[in-house]
Amino acid sequence: MTDFEVTRAQFHLPEGVIYLDGNSLGPLPRAATARVAACLSQEWGERLITGWNKAGWMAQPRALGDRIGRLIGASPGHTVVGDTLSIKVYQALAAALALRPERRVILSDRGNFPSDLYMAEGLIGALDRGHVLKTVAPEEVAEHIDDGVAALMLTEVDYRTGRIHDMKSLTAQAHAAGALAIWDLAHSAGAIPVDVSAARADFAVGCTYKYLNGGPGAPAFIYVAPDHADIAPPALSGWLGHEAPFAFDRDYRPGRGIDRMRVGTPPVLQMAALETALDIWDAVDMADVRARSIELTELFISLIDAHCPSVTLNSPRDSAMRGSQVALRHPEGYAVMQALIARGVIGDFRAPDNLRFGFTPLYTTDQDVRGAVTALADVLDNALWDAPRYKKRAAVT
Amino acid sequence: MTDFEVTRAQFHLPEGVIYLDGNSLGPLPRAATARVAACLSQEWGERLITGWNKAGWMAQPRALGDRIGRLIGASPGHTVVGDTLSIKVYQALAAALALRPERRVILSDRGNFPSDLYMAEGLIGALDRGHVLKTVAPEEVAEHIDDGVAALMLTEVDYRTGRIHDMKSLTAQAHAAGALAIWDLAHSAGAIPVDVSAARADFAVGCTYKYLNGGPGAPAFIYVAPDHADIAPPALSGWLGHEAPFAFDRDYRPGRGIDRMRVGTPPVLQMAALETALDIWDAVDMADVRARSIELTELFISLIDAHCPSVTLNSPRDSAMRGSQVALRHPEGYAVMQALIARGVIGDFRAPDNLRFGFTPLYTTDQDVRGAVTALADVLDNALWDAPRYKKRAAVT
Repeated sequence: MTDFEVTRAQFHLPEGVIYLDGNSLGPLPRAATARVAACLSQEWGERLITGWNKAGWMAQPRALGDRIGRLIGASPGHTVVGDTLSIKVYQALAAALALRPERRVILSDRGNFPSDLYMAEGLIGALDRGHVLKTVAPEEVAEHIDDGVAALMLTEVDYRTGRIHDMKSLTAQAHAAGALAIWDLAHSAGAIPVDVSAARADFAVGCTYKYLNGGPGAPAFIYVAPDHADIAPPALSGWLGHEAPFAFDRDYRPGRGIDRMRVGTPPVLQMAALETALDIWDAVDMADVRARSIELTELFISLIDAHCPSVTLNSPRDSAMRGSQVALRHPEGYAVMQALIARGVIGDFRAPDNLRFGFTPLYTTDQDVRGAVTALADVLDNALWDAPRYKKRAAVT
Repeated sequence: MTDFEVTRAQFHLPEGVIYLDGNSLGPLPRAATARVAACLSQEWGERLITGWNKAGWMAQPRALGDRIGRLIGASPGHTVVGDTLSIKVYQALAAALALRPERRVILSDRGNFPSDLYMAEGLIGALDRGHVLKTVAPEEVAEHIDDGVAALMLTEVDYRTGRIHDMKSLTAQAHAAGALAIWDLAHSAGAIPVDVSAARADFAVGCTYKYLNGGPGAPAFIYVAPDHADIAPPALSGWLGHEAPFAFDRDYRPGRGIDRMRVGTPPVLQMAALETALDIWDAVDMADVRARSIELTELFISLIDAHCPSVTLNSPRDSAMRGSQVALRHPEGYAVMQALIARGVIGDFRAPDNLRFGFTPLYTTDQDVRGAVTALADVLDNALWDAPRYKKRAAVT
C-alpha cells in the first residue's frame, strides 16, 4: 500500500502555496538538488569525458526508460528517454507511416494537444506525398477508423478536459482496420494506470515533467511495441541510434530494438533530476494512485458543485472516464486564474475558457482541495478578477 | 586582451589530470554547480510552473542563442538554442531541401561527422523522393558543386583531423550554383573565429558541450540567415515554434524568424549550466583565442616531431588550415589512448587509428602540452599499450 504521507515528504512544496498544476510541471523532489549538484561536481567536474561510461551517463536513457516502462505496462527494453515529446511524436508518426506506406490518413481528434497535431502537419508537409491529418470530435474517433488510416494518433487523457480515451478498444479497432496506434501519454503516465502491452499499443510517447516530476525541460520517452522495434525505420537517424555509434561508420545502420529511437547526446543534468523523481515512483503502486486520485477529484467536484455555481464542469462527471485533472469553464477564466494564483492557489488556464486543476496524490491533500475551492469561491463571489475588493469567506468543509 | 589565467581560474580542473578533450566535453565552470542548484531550489522549487515566465526559462533559448551568436558572427535574433545537434542538422537540411524543391543532391564530404550524414540518410529515406547524399573527399568538394546540388552540408572543422574548410569560398561557390550551404560548427564555435554573416552561410548548427563548455548533454544551437528566417518551412513544427504557442490553435503557423526553429520544451537545467559557461565566453575575444590556440598546437606538434617519431601527424601542418585540435595516427591508437588516460592525460580515440587532442586556450597551458607529450613519448617508447612495464622518462622541455 503506497503511503502518500511518505511520498509527500519527499517533495519540496513552497510555503503558503496550494499547487494544483503538477499536471503541467511537477514539484521538486527533495533529493534532486543534491543529486544534480553531485552530477556536476563529482561526475562532470571530476570524471569529465569519462563520465559517459564511468558515471553511466550513456546507459541512463535505457535505464530511466525501463523505470518509466513499469508505470505504463511496457516490458523492459522497450522504452527509452530523450529529446522532447514533440520530437518523440515525430519519430513515432514517421515510423508508423513508413510501416503503412500505402495509406495516407493520420486520424486524430480535435482535442489532441496542439503540438502533436503540429508535428503531424510538419511531417506531412515535409513528406509531400498526399498524407492528410484528419481530426474529428473525440467521441467520433471510432467511427472514422477505416482502411485508409495509416496511424491513429491520440492523447489518452485530454489535456484540457481530462477525458480518457479507451486505449485498448480504439487500438483493437485500429488494428482491425490495418492501422497502427500511437498513444501520447503526457497526461497518463503517473496519473492513471496504463498498460501499453495489454492494449497492444504500437507506439507510446510522453513527457516526464508533469506527473512524473522530472523537472522543467525533463526529457521525453518513447515506447515501441516489440513487434515493430526491430523493423521501424527511424526518420531521425542520429548517431546514438546507430548499431555501433563509436565505430563512426559512413552509413547508418539502425540499432537493435528501442536503441534506434535514440538520436543525439542525452541531457545528463536533466536525467540526474529525473532519476530522483523516479526513485519516488519506484515505491508507488499505480492502483493506489488511481484510487486516491479519484477521491481527490470527487471531493473537488462535489465542493465546486456546492460552492461555485457560476462555473461549469468541463471534465467527465463519471470518474471512470476522467484522468487526474478537472477543468472548469468560466467566461473570465484567464482573469479568474490570475486572481487564484495571486492567492497562492496555482492551477492553469487553457484557452478559450478552461480553468485546469491537476490532482497528484503523491503530494496533494484533502486540505489542499478544500483550500483551493475556498479561494475559488471567494474569487467568483466577489468578482475579484476585475474588482480587487475582498470579503473574507469561511473555509469550505 | 583576453586574460587566460583569469579564464582558467573559472574552471574546475581535476587534480593530476591533463585534459586535452575539451573538444569533446569541456570542463565544469566553477559557477555552474551553484547556478544549477539555484535553478532547482529557488526557481523550480519555489516558483514551480511560474518559473517559465518569472524565472525567464521561456526566454532563455533566444538569450543564450544571441550570446553564442556573437561568437559565430550572427547578428542578434538569428540564433536559438535547443534539442541536440543531430536534430538541428535535420531541421536545417529539411528546410534547405524545401527551399530548393527541384534539386535532389545533398553534397557533403566523407570526413563529415557521421551523425550529420546519418541524419541526411534518415531524412532522404523519409522523404522518399529520390534525393541522394553524395559524399566526396574533403579536398574535392568544390569541384562537385553543380546545379543539381540542393544543399552543401559540411562541418567546417573536421572532427578527426581538424582540417578547416573555407566556409566563405565554398558558400560562395554553392550560391553561384544556386545551392544553399549548411555549416556544422561543432568543432568551430569557441575554437576558431567564425563569421557566418560575412560568409553568407544559409544555416549553421553546432553543439555547446565541446569548446563552449556547456556540460554533458547541453543543448545545440541553430542559426538561420535573415533571408531565409521567415520563409524556411520547419519540418519539426513543434508548439514552441508556433506563432502563438499558448493560443493552442488547431493549426500550425510558424513563428517569426528563428523562433520557428524552436520545437518542444527547452531543457531548463542544462540551460542554467550553459549560462555560466557563456558568462566566461562573454569576456573573451575570439582573435585572442585563435592566436593562443595556434601557439598551443604548434608547440604540441613541434614536441611530437622531436619526441614521438612513431606517430604520424593526421592534421594539417599549416596552422592556418587547422582548427584547435591535433590528430596523430598510430596503428595501436586505441590502446595507446587507454594507456595515456591511465596516466592522467585525457585525449580521445577516433576510429580507425586517430589519437585526438584538443587545445582549449581558456584553460590549457604550455605545461599541459609538455606533460602530455612526455606521457605519450613514454607510452610509445615503452610500448606500454601491451606491456605495463614503465621506464621513467625525463620531462620534455
